[in-house]
Amino acid sequence: MKLASLKQGRDGRLVVVSDDLAWYADAAHIAPTLQAALDDWDRIEPDLRNLATDLEHEAIPRERFHEHNAASPLPRAYQWADGSAYVNHVKLVRQARGAEMPDSFWHDPLMYQGGSDGFLAPRDDIPLKDEGWGCDLEAEVVVVTGDVPMGAGREEALKGVRLVGLTNDVSLRNLIPGELGKGFGFFQSKPASAFSPVFVTPDALGDWWRDGKLHRKLMVDLNGEPFGRAEAGEDMTFDFGTLIAHAAKSRKLGAGTIIGSGTVSNRDADGGPGRPIADGGVGYSCLAEVRTVETIEGGAPATDFLKVGDTVRIWAEDDNHHPIFGVIEQTVAAA
Amino acid sequence: MKLASLKQGRDGRLVVVSDDLAWYADAAHIAPTLQAALDDWDRIEPDLRNLATDLEHEAIPRERFHEHNAASPLPRAYQWADGSAYVNHVKLVRQARGAEMPDSFWHDPLMYQGGSDGFLAPRDDIPLKDEGWGCDLEAEVVVVTGDVPMGAGREEALKGVRLVGLTNDVSLRNLIPGELGKGFGFFQSKPASAFSPVFVTPDALGDWWRDGKLHRKLMVDLNGEPFGRAEAGEDMTFDFGTLIAHAAKSRKLGAGTIIGSGTVSNRDADGGPGRPIADGGVGYSCLAEVRTVETIEGGAPATDFLKVGDTVRIWAEDDNHHPIFGVIEQTVAAA
Repeated sequence: MKLASLKQGRDGRLVVVSDDLAWYADAAHIAPTLQAALDDWDRIEPDLRNLATDLEHEAIPRERFHEHNAASPLPRAYQWADGSAYVNHVKLVRQARGAEMPDSFWHDPLMYQGGSDGFLAPRDDIPLKDEGWGCDLEAEVVVVTGDVPMGAGREEALKGVRLVGLTNDVSLRNLIPGELGKGFGFFQSKPASAFSPVFVTPDALGDWWRDGKLHRKLMVDLNGEPFGRAEAGEDMTFDFGTLIAHAAKSRKLGAGTIIGSGTVSNRDADGGPGRPIADGGVGYSCLAEVRTVETIEGGAPATDFLKVGDTVRIWAEDDNHHPIFGVIEQTVAAA
Repeated sequence: MKLASLKQGRDGRLVVVSDDLAWYADAAHIAPTLQAALDDWDRIEPDLRNLATDLEHEAIPRERFHEHNAASPLPRAYQWADGSAYVNHVKLVRQARGAEMPDSFWHDPLMYQGGSDGFLAPRDDIPLKDEGWGCDLEAEVVVVTGDVPMGAGREEALKGVRLVGLTNDVSLRNLIPGELGKGFGFFQSKPASAFSPVFVTPDALGDWWRDGKLHRKLMVDLNGEPFGRAEAGEDMTFDFGTLIAHAAKSRKLGAGTIIGSGTVSNRDADGGPGRPIADGGVGYSCLAEVRTVETIEGGAPATDFLKVGDTVRIWAEDDNHHPIFGVIEQTVAAA
C-alpha cells in the first residue's frame, strides 16, 4: 500500500496511491490525515488496504496523481530522529579532517533529534538565506513507526515500522562546526527536510525490505547529472530495528515518529574512499562526502556546496526503472 | 486567559481555566485541542477570550478544575526547543569539571532540539528504567509560539509568543557525557518532559511578563523541602525574543513550537556559586547545579540524583501565594 498527502491545510489530505503512482483515491473518509491514520493504525489500516485494493481494481472513482500536488506525507510530525547508520560516511568525514573515529561508533548508533514542525513538500524549493552557510543535500532512507514502548528491543522495534520512504535531509554544513563545538548538537544547521511524495508499507516492498533495510539503489542526480547510485542495503551498519531501539532506550516513541538512516554511503570496491559515477564508482549521497574524498586525495575540496538555482533529484526505482516512492526534486532558491 | 488540556485521547480536550484555577469551561466547541487553537489563533483567540470572560462572570456552566485531570497543555507538540539562557548555570557546570566556558556563550545562545512526541502530564510519575542513569529535574520557564517567519528579529519573535508556562525538563545526567562526546547532542539523555497544568497568555501576567522574561520566583520543592527559589527574571542572559529568533535563523517555526529557557539559575549575592535555601541562598533548579557547587567547594558532589520514590514540585506564585500555572508534581517510579 502506498500513501500520500495532497497539499491542504497544515496536515494535508490523506490519499491512497496506486502502485504505479499514476492514480489516487481520496482516503479522507477513512482518516483525514496520515497522522490520524497512524494514531489509530490497527483500526484504520484494514480500511485503507481495502481502498488500495479497490483502486488497483479500478472499482472506485480515481484521480490522476501528480507529485507536484503532494505535500510531505507527514507535512509536520511529532518526531524526526535521524541516525547515521552508514558509518563509512562518518569515517570518511572524520578522515578528511584528520580526526580518529572512536571504535564505539561501529557499535553505538549516532542519532540526533531533528526539527519536525514543518517539512518541505517533495517539489518545494529549498529556501536559503545565505549561500555562505554551505547548503548540502543528504539522501537517506526513512521509516515511520507506530507507538514503540520504552526499552523495546530490535525485533519489537522492527515490528513497529509502518511505512518506508526517502528524505532529502537538508544541511547547512558551514554552520555545523560552530554548533557541534557548543556541544548541544544540530539546530540552525538543520533546516526543514523534504520527504518522498509517497510512503510505502513494508509488505508492498517485498524482498526489497528485509533485515530492517531497504535493498534498493538510492538514486541522486545533481543539476541533471548522475551524482549518487549507492546501494541502500549495503554498508548500513545499523538496521532500522537497531536505530528505533536506540531511540526508545529511555522513552517511548509516539506513533508517527520518523527515523532516518543518515546519508547513504557505500565503501568503494577496493576499500578506498569511493569514486564519482563518471569514474566507475557509485558516487555520493551528499556533497560533504565528495568534498571529503577530494580533500583526502587532493588536499582540498573542489566541489562547491549548493548555490541558488541548483537542482537535486532523489528517488529509488523498481526493476522497470519506475520510481517506488515518487521523486524528490528541489531547486535551491534565495530566501 | 488561562488554558489547559484535560486528559482525553492523544491531544487532550481544550478548556479555559479561571484565573484562580478553581473552575474550567469546556472549549471543545471552539477548538478541540490547544494545537488546533494555535493553528488558527487569530480567528479562535477572540472566542476563547469571550469564553474566559463568561467563566470569570459565572455566566456559563462551569466545572471544578482538578490539576490531576490535566494532561500537558500540549500533550504532544511539533517542536520543543530548549535554550540555556541562564549562562551562570552553564558556567558553574563547566567550572566544576575544570573547563573554561567560551566567551561566545555570553552572546550566542545554546539551544537543543528536544523530543516532543509525547510529554508527561503534570502529575504523572517520571518513569525511570535505571537509577544509574542519574535522573535530574530541571525547572524552567517556557513559551509557546505562533508561526514565526525565518529570519525574524527579536521584536518580531517576541510578538509570536502566545502562551507562557513552566516545565520540568527531565534529564539523565549520566548519559549526557557519552552523548555529547559523540557530537550529535542530547537524545537518550532527554526523556519526556512535563509541563505545568496551565499555560497563560502574556497579557494575563501583567507586569510579571516584560522584556521577554517571566519576573516571578521559580519555586522548586524536593521531597517536601524547599530546594529552589530562584528569580526567573534575573540573570537570564537571553530573553525569549532572542531565543526564538535564534531558533528561527535558518527556518520558520510552526505554530505550537515550545521554547524553553533552560534551567533557571541565579548568581549568589556575593558573586559566589550560590547557596542552599537553608543557608540563606535562593537554592537551585536542578540537582546538577547543587552537585556542581558541592564539587567546587568540597571536591565531590554530596547530593544524589533522583531515586525511585523521590518527589518534585515546581510552580510559580502570585502575590497571594496562589500558583499561577498550577503545580508540576511528580514522583520518580521504576519503569
